[in-house]
Amino acid sequence: MAEIMAAAIQLFKDKGYHATSMQDIADAVGLQKGSLYHYISSKEDLLILIIREALAQYISNLEEIARSNLPPRDKFAEAVRHHLKGIATNLGMLTVFLREAHALTPEQRAIVDRETRRYNELVEGIYQEGVAQGVFRPLNPKLVCRTVLGACNWFYRWYRPDGPLSLEEMADFFVDVLFRGIEARPAASETAPPGSGGQSAAGGSDTSAGA
Amino acid sequence: MAEIMAAAIQLFKDKGYHATSMQDIADAVGLQKGSLYHYISSKEDLLILIIREALAQYISNLEEIARSNLPPRDKFAEAVRHHLKGIATNLGMLTVFLREAHALTPEQRAIVDRETRRYNELVEGIYQEGVAQGVFRPLNPKLVCRTVLGACNWFYRWYRPDGPLSLEEMADFFVDVLFRGIEARPAASETAPPGSGGQSAAGGSDTSAGA
Repeated sequence: MAEIMAAAIQLFKDKGYHATSMQDIADAVGLQKGSLYHYISSKEDLLILIIREALAQYISNLEEIARSNLPPRDKFAEAVRHHLKGIATNLGMLTVFLREAHALTPEQRAIVDRETRRYNELVEGIYQEGVAQGVFRPLNPKLVCRTVLGACNWFYRWYRPDGPLSLEEMADFFVDVLFRGIEARPAASETAPPGSGGQSAAGGSDTSAGA
Repeated sequence: MAEIMAAAIQLFKDKGYHATSMQDIADAVGLQKGSLYHYISSKEDLLILIIREALAQYISNLEEIARSNLPPRDKFAEAVRHHLKGIATNLGMLTVFLREAHALTPEQRAIVDRETRRYNELVEGIYQEGVAQGVFRPLNPKLVCRTVLGACNWFYRWYRPDGPLSLEEMADFFVDVLFRGIEARPAASETAPPGSGGQSAAGGSDTSAGA
């Protein structure tokens, strides 16, 4: 089964989900198409299996980070690193998930949406713990989560294992830039972006994107 | 032709590119399938047309911002706003572009890659102008561009015109958080993220993600 999933991930990633047939998958694992149906009932089933497996790994690792005794800023850094490493090490699975989720049935999509929400809530929880401790500025938690995870998710589009920078260097960069973007500290008023909502120089009272 | 493109965008967005047939497109615009071939030679042609039109609009608007006399921080803010507004107002076209680009032929993909590179270079140029003027920290320009545009690109996945926040409010949020992430100013050392490369408290010397 693991072999079938690995083959399907590779094919969905390279050819796209719709362009891949059950025959392609059977060929890739050296099975007759009829035998393949012993293991899975349809291509749709395989897609939802792949997506749920990707999400389950992601969620359980993040739950561990969220439950740990680390201070919020370390939790945030670990969450970003975990997210990027997860994309880098499961590039095929994540590409299929991030690109092909629209091919799911409404029922399957509801399951995936629920699990994605759980993931986002964990990230929001880490952020809000940091706000409570004065580490992060109080902003709209949903938007914080979408900005941070959006920047990280896009990683799947351009990350190449043989690129000039190591995964560690890139993760350091993301943690640094994203952390600075939301941390609580006095704004450098002379460099405040125009129209950014007139946040006070004391920080922590920016409500321009408030809930 | 505009009508055919609009219909194709809607279908590619809702059903996905591979699941949409030329018959579906003909039906949507009330043409015989044979007549549709007067206008376009294949579904592939239509996809590349849609993608190139999306990119051409994006690039020419951004060129205008980059060429303007605005200070770098305003250029940066305008570039982020322009990117998000472009996604919001061309949601269908951008969804097709961002999700279906892998369905292009290698030759088509080379064209799109070149135009995407041009877009990224404009954003990097704005950032580097700001570095030269001391507004932004010197970081790896490619990574800055990927972080900023990645966060913005992900917008196409969750933006809903009828959501609780206006486009303006969300754009303000992105400008604020992303600008702070890269602006030059003293780091609040007590809130510096762990393992972020030991940047100096004076800012501007962070090379943790340097080229």
